[in-house]
Amino acid sequence: MSLTRAGCLALDANDPLAQHRSAFALPDGIVYLDGNSLGALPVTTAARVREVIEDEWGRGLIGSWNDAGWIDASRRAGSKIARLIGAADDEVICADSTSVNLFKVLAAALRLEQRRPPVTEHVRDVILSERGSFPTDLYVAQAIAEISGGRCRLVTVSADDIAYHIDDGTAVLLLTHVDYRSGRMHDMRELTRRAHFAGALTVWDLAHSAGALPVDLAEAGADFAVGCGYKYLNGGPGAPAFVFVARRHLHAMADDRFAQPLAGWFGHRAPFEFSPEYEPAAGIDRFGVGTPSIIALAALECGVDTVLAAGIDALRSKSVQLTQLFIDLVDNRCANLGLGLASPREAARRGSQVCYAHDHASPVMQALIGRGVVGDYRPGQAGEPGILRFGFAPLYLRFADVWDAVEALRDILATRAWDRPKFIERRAVT
Amino acid sequence: MSLTRAGCLALDANDPLAQHRSAFALPDGIVYLDGNSLGALPVTTAARVREVIEDEWGRGLIGSWNDAGWIDASRRAGSKIARLIGAADDEVICADSTSVNLFKVLAAALRLEQRRPPVTEHVRDVILSERGSFPTDLYVAQAIAEISGGRCRLVTVSADDIAYHIDDGTAVLLLTHVDYRSGRMHDMRELTRRAHFAGALTVWDLAHSAGALPVDLAEAGADFAVGCGYKYLNGGPGAPAFVFVARRHLHAMADDRFAQPLAGWFGHRAPFEFSPEYEPAAGIDRFGVGTPSIIALAALECGVDTVLAAGIDALRSKSVQLTQLFIDLVDNRCANLGLGLASPREAARRGSQVCYAHDHASPVMQALIGRGVVGDYRPGQAGEPGILRFGFAPLYLRFADVWDAVEALRDILATRAWDRPKFIERRAVT
Repeated sequence: MSLTRAGCLALDANDPLAQHRSAFALPDGIVYLDGNSLGALPVTTAARVREVIEDEWGRGLIGSWNDAGWIDASRRAGSKIARLIGAADDEVICADSTSVNLFKVLAAALRLEQRRPPVTEHVRDVILSERGSFPTDLYVAQAIAEISGGRCRLVTVSADDIAYHIDDGTAVLLLTHVDYRSGRMHDMRELTRRAHFAGALTVWDLAHSAGALPVDLAEAGADFAVGCGYKYLNGGPGAPAFVFVARRHLHAMADDRFAQPLAGWFGHRAPFEFSPEYEPAAGIDRFGVGTPSIIALAALECGVDTVLAAGIDALRSKSVQLTQLFIDLVDNRCANLGLGLASPREAARRGSQVCYAHDHASPVMQALIGRGVVGDYRPGQAGEPGILRFGFAPLYLRFADVWDAVEALRDILATRAWDRPKFIERRAVT
Repeated sequence: MSLTRAGCLALDANDPLAQHRSAFALPDGIVYLDGNSLGALPVTTAARVREVIEDEWGRGLIGSWNDAGWIDASRRAGSKIARLIGAADDEVICADSTSVNLFKVLAAALRLEQRRPPVTEHVRDVILSERGSFPTDLYVAQAIAEISGGRCRLVTVSADDIAYHIDDGTAVLLLTHVDYRSGRMHDMRELTRRAHFAGALTVWDLAHSAGALPVDLAEAGADFAVGCGYKYLNGGPGAPAFVFVARRHLHAMADDRFAQPLAGWFGHRAPFEFSPEYEPAAGIDRFGVGTPSIIALAALECGVDTVLAAGIDALRSKSVQLTQLFIDLVDNRCANLGLGLASPREAARRGSQVCYAHDHASPVMQALIGRGVVGDYRPGQAGEPGILRFGFAPLYLRFADVWDAVEALRDILATRAWDRPKFIERRAVT
């Protein structure tokens, strides 16, 4: 790979995904390396949302629940996401937020686990997770452990130690597939295999995977998963999240009314019968709860369509090229400028982001944003330096953008342009 | 009140709220009596949502969380709703769905109740509710009772018997303020007083109250409440819901990390510190969970603004006139046509809707909708006849609309126009 801007422009000229950039409304003069936090706006979204608002809601009014197919919107978006994560279309539904969906599936997994015949006499009460997981995953697990009244507890270990802590005390393995901070990717297949061998179930958080790289939940034998609509799926700020439950578990919980404890009318077998007793829908619909936002679901569907149009394998291929280019350029052009690679060097173990630790990560990122290179800052763990986080959304990023980002970074570090009063130093959270 | 169409037109001509109809994009030729199910579209919504999508998301990208005030959107919408329900602006937040919010507050109320010093030695384990409550309220209570492992149970009685069942076994009184089926309104102040006297806490579902009539949670001494954004608040299909917690309870639960058990990062004291331990926000913010849909919140805010612009007292005054006119006209013009009033005759005990039982309610409503009079059908309880449900949103309904609706109803019943194969008979749910 030739490390010049001209070389990057040549890569763009030959990029089979280059045309997809025009599917997004991106502001001029910005290199947007934060699509892993909030995906860019598809050009179709505004018109589609306007149609939902003016035609379906404004003119169709209540009749649009049937006439415009609102009643199926959660499943329709879910079935599109299913194609990106190796799931069947009756295994995924879009509803609520990632946090709320985590509560549903973690509770459901623990309950299924409690109903299974014990493998050993050991008490199986551990939710095993990673110390540095995205906080909401840990918070939900802490809450579930607390309200269980001692029936389960959360144990967190470092990423490297996960595999060695899966044992006959593990009820549920709760992991983020791609770490939000480092971009490190777990081996979903291998860890699921180990979990199953030990008699545990798995909950995968796909927030930083879905839409960025191929996920094959079926091949991995995954049990439960959740994911986010507003990152690589480009669904808009706070887009509805999704939830996956393997069909075998949907069957296994069929006779357990509150297997999913957030029992709301949109999870009922027949919401419009207004029956006083909760009877869950037979399949994935029971993971719905209240009335979903139809406007938000319409925007999400536009976002998912941008990913489907490009194809997830092609996206992964370009993503690996982009992240590798970024690492190579930083190696070459930012040596001895205080950056420590915080992401795996090996592409196969890395999601679609690259992170660097730096002693002044927060002001450095502010200076970068000031020059139109938009990544984000994440505090370091337990006194460690903060992190410069760069996400690479292959749908709309160009190779030349990567060059320009690294040049801006190099210049800011070499000239200490971050060391200005207007850039605020933030401390690591301990 | 003069019972002629001309008289109704005269009422419209003198209606101080008449001008507010132009704040809505209503289709021609429709009398919309279903604003209690899905409020009409405000004319401001499409442009505001477009601004959020194209400017804030499209151009502002991730920076809009701060620059466009997204981070405050849940509280901003909540503080507007607070003004309609007699709450302080630090007691209400918009988030999630009504069902999910019910789960939060019911769990929180039970937990607070368990921590209070017992009034008597009696086991206080009952969630007391109404047999005919909106199903999702009952479902959530059933779920919470079930997962509590026997620590609480749901008891439902008829509306008339509620007051007599509040006793020292009652932990939480869970009631819908205005019944979704009959429009009957509970005396919030009196029932809250009785509940408190017995040592119980109250959870009020304001789905059919907020935006339709003045609610004064502070004056009633209410403890918890939830409500819906897409009915009289005109927030759009599946709009975010709201949740109210009295400030004294927010204080009382300050030292209890999981008082609200859906512990997500948007309920954390400092979400962007990414701290591994859940520390709830001090106030109502802890009733947030995941990232809220900013697009849906923007639409909701437009809807709430329409209500604030008219003033809730003026709306109630017109609402009472509209519902009374409807009842008077049906009395006069639809006598002996098989309609049985299923709503209170006394305006003070009635919300903003009027319902009639009819042996063929389902095809009658379909025939009405065929003539542009849009109400809805709700199945009867336990073998009773189904219900024709008419909602009266005083922001955009005219007195002449009421006349036209009753005339259509009279004609359909008098000519048995509902008795056609294209109109499907639906059975009551038993």
